[in-house]
Amino acid sequence: MRIIIDAFGGDNAPLSNIEGAYLATKEYDADILLCGNKEKIEKCAKENNIPLDNIEIVHADDIFDIHDDPNLLLKSKKNTSLAVAFSAVKEGKADAVVSAGSSGAVLMGGTFIVKRIKGIKRPAFAAVIPTASGNPYMLLDSGANIDCRADVLEQFGLVGSVYMKNVMGVENPKVGLLNIGAEETKGGETLVEAYQKLKNSSLNFIGNVEPRDVPAGACDVVVCDGFSGNIVLKLTEGVALSFMKMFKAILLKNIVSKIAALLIKSGLKDLKKKFDYKELGGAPLIGVRKPVIKAHGSSDSKAIKSAVKQAILFAETGVTAEIENAIKGVED
Amino acid sequence: MRIIIDAFGGDNAPLSNIEGAYLATKEYDADILLCGNKEKIEKCAKENNIPLDNIEIVHADDIFDIHDDPNLLLKSKKNTSLAVAFSAVKEGKADAVVSAGSSGAVLMGGTFIVKRIKGIKRPAFAAVIPTASGNPYMLLDSGANIDCRADVLEQFGLVGSVYMKNVMGVENPKVGLLNIGAEETKGGETLVEAYQKLKNSSLNFIGNVEPRDVPAGACDVVVCDGFSGNIVLKLTEGVALSFMKMFKAILLKNIVSKIAALLIKSGLKDLKKKFDYKELGGAPLIGVRKPVIKAHGSSDSKAIKSAVKQAILFAETGVTAEIENAIKGVED
Repeated sequence: MRIIIDAFGGDNAPLSNIEGAYLATKEYDADILLCGNKEKIEKCAKENNIPLDNIEIVHADDIFDIHDDPNLLLKSKKNTSLAVAFSAVKEGKADAVVSAGSSGAVLMGGTFIVKRIKGIKRPAFAAVIPTASGNPYMLLDSGANIDCRADVLEQFGLVGSVYMKNVMGVENPKVGLLNIGAEETKGGETLVEAYQKLKNSSLNFIGNVEPRDVPAGACDVVVCDGFSGNIVLKLTEGVALSFMKMFKAILLKNIVSKIAALLIKSGLKDLKKKFDYKELGGAPLIGVRKPVIKAHGSSDSKAIKSAVKQAILFAETGVTAEIENAIKGVED
Repeated sequence: MRIIIDAFGGDNAPLSNIEGAYLATKEYDADILLCGNKEKIEKCAKENNIPLDNIEIVHADDIFDIHDDPNLLLKSKKNTSLAVAFSAVKEGKADAVVSAGSSGAVLMGGTFIVKRIKGIKRPAFAAVIPTASGNPYMLLDSGANIDCRADVLEQFGLVGSVYMKNVMGVENPKVGLLNIGAEETKGGETLVEAYQKLKNSSLNFIGNVEPRDVPAGACDVVVCDGFSGNIVLKLTEGVALSFMKMFKAILLKNIVSKIAALLIKSGLKDLKKKFDYKELGGAPLIGVRKPVIKAHGSSDSKAIKSAVKQAILFAETGVTAEIENAIKGVED
């Protein structure tokens, strides 16, 4: 198993990515490759005392900046660490790729370098989000496609189910359509049509799911367009952060509350860990031929390491082949 | 000041509504009217020992069911407590109306019985949502209009600003456009157009606001279409509920954690109160000629009472006239 990391993607690159790569070599039974300017990587590693002995560097001259137009990835930006890492996966030099770089560029690289699985209409970012029930759900699309047709939404239900079953071990995953009401007729035309398609599919479709019920763990796969999904992803993070902050304020208020904080320290730590994106890895780009993991833009070394873990899991379980089969099954 | 309550709207009607009306008479300096079947209201009040001495009953034969088609409100359902209450406000028998009934019917009643303020393109539900910063924000539209044109979104910014300034006392309210990225070009065509309109307006427009930053209190008015807004409203509630539940589990885990819970009891109570919709009242339907408050569907008596308080505030501050002036100002 060989995982390639885009060394220059994300707000804390390259240091966090190099350090994350090193942590991954120590923890996982996989070969780790770092993609980017060799000289810069070696310099940064040296300055920060990070051993590169077990890491293979795949050289790429350039860096894909977060503000660059994703459409340039295959043109003037094809020598960036992001593009070269995706090409390495395409050419079989690595089994999966991790990047904390521009979402648009990751989508571009996945779709046009790694390429779509046969039959896939639209690849989707598919974040896995923790819930109060303890069972995380897969949210797709969580940001790749602003608008989605009904048949695309239906397919999200299918690929999400395959992923949750094969990678996360959920038997007969419950699929919900994100909507602002439970009734079949809620939402715009597209959602009404998608409802019927999902209802008539072989999936375990539980109907519309309201945003109020999603964080409690109402279903295993939440289907929506990328605009709504990105709202759900980012708002969940925002509300969770605000709550942790407000609890912290309660616990730090005075000497008595500080004693209380000590008494529940381990419980709070578990909760924080549960909702920490650094532990969760990133969002798989689902629907392309090789595993692509989009790590959080502000990933630190731990988050990069977790994204590598997710990439290994994604690759090991052979879910890409399962998705291809499932789509073939529907088409036949 | 006369506030009329739809006695038969909501999951816990009529008991919670009657009780809420009674609590309001005790707490606020306003005349409270209950609208609905007189016999049923009196029977329910008697059975539950709720004095009706200071409450005026406005009779209405029928009930508007949550599953009824809102379009019937002005036709076969015009004798429902909801329709009659809205008519009472229109005819000047009351200054404001509170209903926990069907959102669609409240929107219908507001738009076609109470009627729009001159110049208003689309009335919007405008929920006021607490944040970690302590300053709540107004979310509009939070569910009335699934799709909204750019000029409608711009107008939401205007009326939201007027409300936050006049009712909530916020000087120069910060207006943000809900979007999945900070850049001007993010989102679909409508959002890109709305961004430019808001930027060129006289409002204190701070640009796109990402869902991650909304719960921290990034701005005072969050502008979006009713589909996205309803997701924000319901997901915020859902994540908040999940977090409260998980904290509760930590605090109830064992004898030591239970001691901790006692030590931070007052802080937790404050936090719970801050995010309790029962304390917050309901969402004003902004853009119609008289104050209309949509209370939460699962309102208990306390929530009804809070909605009455909000109705009083809305009516007292004369914000409807301010909105009319502000729109005239933009048109001139």
